[in-house]
Amino acid sequence: MRINLDGKWKFREVGQNEYYEASVPGCVQLDLINLGKLPDPFYATNEVLFYDLEEKDFEYVKEFDVDNVDFQVKKLVFEGIDTVSEIYLNDHYLGKTDNMFLKYEFDVSLALKKGKNILKVVLLSPIKEAERLKSIYQSSYSYPQRSWIRKSQYSYGWDWGPRILQIGIWKSVYLELHNGLEIQDEFVKVESISDELAIVRVFAKINCFEKPSEVEIELFDGSFSVKVFPEVYKSKDGYFIDERIEIENPKLWWPNGYGEPSLYEFKITAKTSNEAQEKKVTTGLRTVRVIKEKDEYGESFIFEINGKKIFAKGANWIPADSILPRLKEDDYKELIKMAKDANMNMLRVWGGGIYEYDWFYDECDKNGIMVWQDFMFACAIYPDEFDFFVENFIKEAEYQIKRLRNHPCIVLWCGNNENNWGFRDWWHIGDPEFLGNRIYKKVLPEILAKLDPTRPYHISSPYGGEHPNSEKAGDKHTWDIWAGWKDYIYYKHDNARFVSEFGFQAAAHLDTMKKYIPLKDQTIFSKTLRMHEKQEEGLERLIRYMAGSIGLPKDFDSFVYLSQFVQKEAIKLAVEHYRKNKFATAGALYWQLNDCWPVISWSSIDYLKRRKALYYESKRIFAKFLPVVEYEDGKLKVYIVSDELEPKQGKLNITIWNFDGQKLYEKNLTVEIPENSVVEAFSEKVENLNILKGEWLYIPKHVETAVIGDKIDRGLLESIVFVSLFVDRVEYENYFVFEKPINLELKPSQFEYRIEDDHIIIKPKTPAICLIIEADRDVENNFIFARPEKEYKINLNG
Amino acid sequence: MRINLDGKWKFREVGQNEYYEASVPGCVQLDLINLGKLPDPFYATNEVLFYDLEEKDFEYVKEFDVDNVDFQVKKLVFEGIDTVSEIYLNDHYLGKTDNMFLKYEFDVSLALKKGKNILKVVLLSPIKEAERLKSIYQSSYSYPQRSWIRKSQYSYGWDWGPRILQIGIWKSVYLELHNGLEIQDEFVKVESISDELAIVRVFAKINCFEKPSEVEIELFDGSFSVKVFPEVYKSKDGYFIDERIEIENPKLWWPNGYGEPSLYEFKITAKTSNEAQEKKVTTGLRTVRVIKEKDEYGESFIFEINGKKIFAKGANWIPADSILPRLKEDDYKELIKMAKDANMNMLRVWGGGIYEYDWFYDECDKNGIMVWQDFMFACAIYPDEFDFFVENFIKEAEYQIKRLRNHPCIVLWCGNNENNWGFRDWWHIGDPEFLGNRIYKKVLPEILAKLDPTRPYHISSPYGGEHPNSEKAGDKHTWDIWAGWKDYIYYKHDNARFVSEFGFQAAAHLDTMKKYIPLKDQTIFSKTLRMHEKQEEGLERLIRYMAGSIGLPKDFDSFVYLSQFVQKEAIKLAVEHYRKNKFATAGALYWQLNDCWPVISWSSIDYLKRRKALYYESKRIFAKFLPVVEYEDGKLKVYIVSDELEPKQGKLNITIWNFDGQKLYEKNLTVEIPENSVVEAFSEKVENLNILKGEWLYIPKHVETAVIGDKIDRGLLESIVFVSLFVDRVEYENYFVFEKPINLELKPSQFEYRIEDDHIIIKPKTPAICLIIEADRDVENNFIFARPEKEYKINLNG
Repeated sequence: MRINLDGKWKFREVGQNEYYEASVPGCVQLDLINLGKLPDPFYATNEVLFYDLEEKDFEYVKEFDVDNVDFQVKKLVFEGIDTVSEIYLNDHYLGKTDNMFLKYEFDVSLALKKGKNILKVVLLSPIKEAERLKSIYQSSYSYPQRSWIRKSQYSYGWDWGPRILQIGIWKSVYLELHNGLEIQDEFVKVESISDELAIVRVFAKINCFEKPSEVEIELFDGSFSVKVFPEVYKSKDGYFIDERIEIENPKLWWPNGYGEPSLYEFKITAKTSNEAQEKKVTTGLRTVRVIKEKDEYGESFIFEINGKKIFAKGANWIPADSILPRLKEDDYKELIKMAKDANMNMLRVWGGGIYEYDWFYDECDKNGIMVWQDFMFACAIYPDEFDFFVENFIKEAEYQIKRLRNHPCIVLWCGNNENNWGFRDWWHIGDPEFLGNRIYKKVLPEILAKLDPTRPYHISSPYGGEHPNSEKAGDKHTWDIWAGWKDYIYYKHDNARFVSEFGFQAAAHLDTMKKYIPLKDQTIFSKTLRMHEKQEEGLERLIRYMAGSIGLPKDFDSFVYLSQFVQKEAIKLAVEHYRKNKFATAGALYWQLNDCWPVISWSSIDYLKRRKALYYESKRIFAKFLPVVEYEDGKLKVYIVSDELEPKQGKLNITIWNFDGQKLYEKNLTVEIPENSVVEAFSEKVENLNILKGEWLYIPKHVETAVIGDKIDRGLLESIVFVSLFVDRVEYENYFVFEKPINLELKPSQFEYRIEDDHIIIKPKTPAICLIIEADRDVENNFIFARPEKEYKINLNG
Repeated sequence: MRINLDGKWKFREVGQNEYYEASVPGCVQLDLINLGKLPDPFYATNEVLFYDLEEKDFEYVKEFDVDNVDFQVKKLVFEGIDTVSEIYLNDHYLGKTDNMFLKYEFDVSLALKKGKNILKVVLLSPIKEAERLKSIYQSSYSYPQRSWIRKSQYSYGWDWGPRILQIGIWKSVYLELHNGLEIQDEFVKVESISDELAIVRVFAKINCFEKPSEVEIELFDGSFSVKVFPEVYKSKDGYFIDERIEIENPKLWWPNGYGEPSLYEFKITAKTSNEAQEKKVTTGLRTVRVIKEKDEYGESFIFEINGKKIFAKGANWIPADSILPRLKEDDYKELIKMAKDANMNMLRVWGGGIYEYDWFYDECDKNGIMVWQDFMFACAIYPDEFDFFVENFIKEAEYQIKRLRNHPCIVLWCGNNENNWGFRDWWHIGDPEFLGNRIYKKVLPEILAKLDPTRPYHISSPYGGEHPNSEKAGDKHTWDIWAGWKDYIYYKHDNARFVSEFGFQAAAHLDTMKKYIPLKDQTIFSKTLRMHEKQEEGLERLIRYMAGSIGLPKDFDSFVYLSQFVQKEAIKLAVEHYRKNKFATAGALYWQLNDCWPVISWSSIDYLKRRKALYYESKRIFAKFLPVVEYEDGKLKVYIVSDELEPKQGKLNITIWNFDGQKLYEKNLTVEIPENSVVEAFSEKVENLNILKGEWLYIPKHVETAVIGDKIDRGLLESIVFVSLFVDRVEYENYFVFEKPINLELKPSQFEYRIEDDHIIIKPKTPAICLIIEADRDVENNFIFARPEKEYKINLNG
């Protein structure tokens, strides 16, 4: 029997008299906001009002009644406490918590009373706790404060997130009362699959005082169900099942774009003479490995699902709120759906956030989104020289691996974010024995070998090759661009084997910006705006890249739009390059899908789930087919990237226009597109494209030691190329200009439009490199490169 | 007898018929401009019209008469030809030239005729010559084109200069006719100096066919002259003198700010039975060494002149025009005077330019400006694996060392600019045997040991320590700021032993910008403006630093002014830091003093010798006494840096104002200032300064992983500190604000002014961080931080 203790609690700051109403799951921050004692931390600069809470302690109290305490097992379960707390039931001290990522279970056989009970959780300042640990352990290394506490690292402030040190009971609390029967550690492992047959093994521990009288596995594929009665074994740890099940004509789980992400439900039921229990495992049938083979470039890093090479397309995922308990299942449904709609097939759960809510993995399972799962360490050295720290982490790892291992979406475990890169390049400590490496290199491989041998484990992101951030092997974070200020054209020089991070900032949706930045502060350098840009010199970078691409904004609105335009152009260029390089490069996950508050960041979807220009672009650049235009050696070329596992035929239309709207060139081709690769579909000297004018212009260009005038035919600066590829009656488009916008001889676009029901229909008369529709909600397509002759019919409801 | 062949010549492109008028010294570019065949290359984007000349060959012809050819020695002398040429006299082929930095002498005994002579110089394309050498020598290294030719490297385009490959007879041409008597290799070496006595040795070769009948040295100190009759020796190379001369109560040569740069003239006269010749050497009496001693930070790098440690203050020098023959003595007089007036004591002649005209060194001698003299190699690998290249360079080095070694201003020879840094960090080739190192590490030390053992030699700039750009030893180029995009506050972390380069860009003087940028292109991103910014992403950096310091410009004028303001603030901060660190840091030479054309660059003086904000600031930050204000650990401190060799007493006035013009605090102190060091003159907790308001503001600040709100008392953001130090009745001022302007609560400044004769008198009513006077010519002081109560009387004539 489970008695839920969520809902209304009361709380007070330790040392104060009065109690206030609290909610569980929740946190101090949220309760204070709900009480009106603190304002919305995301508005203006309100964030600063929350800093003081960090050093305070709070007491949470729940009174509850229990009618019946006549059970052999009585446990109080906390799904999650953030982070440091002491727990009392009816003044019995139950224990202490110090890990946000752990589920805590306390035996309350002695403390629990029939009738009224008082549960008290004293939440202690994580800052003070870190100081305490620091002074006890006296390391010779200076770990940052956040390293001492197993708490989401981003809450200490990140370069896209506010500093809000959430303190609270952030997940459910309940009593578990029963007589000993429990199904635990359930694990459905795929042993092999083929078109005809999948073999799985279903494992579970059956905790009970006597041998269970009946155990049943019911397998349900969505239409039909089959029952299996597994043998029950006994070991020194108790009873368990480990049943091999053959599934004929299995429906496999495929990543988005490659087929259906079919799921199977395994319901395990166990009975004893006086109890019955069931556990459901929803999982998919798929194999996964990372192909690491020596090749001419070094060593490959290619995800292979069900025997097929998959180019990973997607983004990095961060917690979707800085106040976690506000997140609901619908938020996850919506965000994962958006990732799917953007033709992504992989998200990386970044190590500075949280092991996500079940909702996240459920939705990824259902939508075919592969998950690269980091363990929660990021950008720091960690005190694993101390056993207390490692022991704490081992519990966390065991709990989380068991919790998550049945999700087919998870395709990789990864030790941490950027710490091994940091050892080498930031802290200059080579490849140390401790400082985190004990965990990444020893502890985790051992735990995973035991609890989940079905997935590859990767020491860190990035990792592989002689240098942790090598482009010869493993994955790479490409940050010389943006973080290193380099121009985004240098993405074209990146030969990473798998780009697990690269990114470019832009403001949030204009409406979001305006909602959270007071009108008077809607200027580019207001302190308020600058507080909504969390990267050191982030605003300077935004401006620098605008200046290098298109020019300076004239006002706040154009600042927002230009930032989004440049972000989209930069990431478009990068993804085109990476995909064209497949499988020398085998994945492109941009930093970052989402936001945890309203901020200027690298995200494509803002905090309010509003779409930035990059989101619209993502759909196109991540589509199954991508035509890419390049100007190489005096030739205009069109490449077609295919992620389709079958060969296909496509119809390719190429038109070239000047900005006055004259069509200068058109070509129609039938293209044979080989499966899962890249083909050059078109190549023609520019002389033959009717665009040259024989009139020379000079544009400033860097050559060797200086910027000199680079001679270019005026026609190239006045032209825009559109390609349109039809495969299976679906259109895949792209555009190309010969120079950055700042160098082009652009003209204002002319177009007609009309509204029809829920649609806007736009008819461009001249080409546009970016046509923006302003509407109260996000529309189906936006920030469009618009080709004359084409009618754009766009659903205004998204 | 010398017959000058300068003046009117004629020239034509090889292959063309018609000749046009030419000037020597001069160059093709200048002749074509003078003829009106090409426009001013510095206006708008005219530079691009000059690129075509690079691949062409030109023929220069001079007809001249010689009355008397009855001499034993007949030489045709070219002081400088740029660069590749073949020379014919009366159709006799005299030889080829291939080094711009060499003086060429041809024996014309056979070719010279009495009466009419025709001299022809065929100037060949340096580009084609490089290609020819490349294909002959077939190196496994890919040297840049410019490395093959001993020609000023900046002419190929530099990150502050246009690409104008000067081609021409850039220095004087003459016939030398005599009967064998020549005084050569004259060298006045200081052997020792004290207050009472200087001992010098005067060396010279006396070329002649018979032993000279009389040799005399006349020594003139400006007031008195003394004659010495040295012994004439004979060696296998001929006759020579090597006379030891004692000078009592010598007037020493001191760097600017340390005393007079006294000069002595040594006139050497030699006679034979039928000839007489004299040579004058003007030199100064001084010793120089670089103190390299191990200390707590590594190894010092301190210039010591006449036994005194000198903190080197100054800048880097580049050629003052991209068309060199336009430069005249007055240009050098003016520029070196400006350096002196800015309280500089050192200029570095950078290795990508030229060994300067004699005028330069003469003026540095006279003005007490020390010269760090690079050999002409910059930012490249050089083909010294080939003997032809090394032999060519040996001639160059021998010629230039002999030419320059009598100048007291030169205090250091340096092998090259940044090539050893490049080996390590840019081209990743460690410390190679060739690629330039043969010259820097073997050839040059040998030549200098022979020809000038009186000065230190430094392998490269930067060089010293384990890493060529180490901050532990040797000199350093601090480019992580600006080139590396880092914020300029990071100058404070630079513990270089000697900073031979660091810099920050700004636009030229507004008038200069407007003169060379057509009105329609006076926008921040016009292609024309961008062609006047030669650094890759230079404009982006300008904007980025403006954004980080004060905000974005609203128009072209404010772009120019803001750029200059930020440049001045950045270099002020750096120089204050470096000087306060004396002698752990022993020099600060900013990049760069001057310009070679109208450009946005790191210079403080623009091409038209107009002063940028930094120029005015340089006077102050390089002054003998510099009060520096710091806010450290909650205390406001004033340090006084002294470059005076005697202890002094000063009167220090400290006032603090708010931007409304209220004086919040004032303190007057008498300060004992020890010689040649730094003293803390004032330290007070801000609580005691009457500026705190107890009202807290938050400013965005980067802490660890994010930008968070940093709590700061509003009073600090509304205050400005002025310090005024009087020593020997001279005022030395400084100002300080607690944050960057973008974070301050600034208000528009209020002031009164009036004009009196040639002066403007300004009376500020409220403080200003930067008060700009717009006038048709440069005024005495500008870009002023203005303190109320003070009357600023500024000469409008500069």
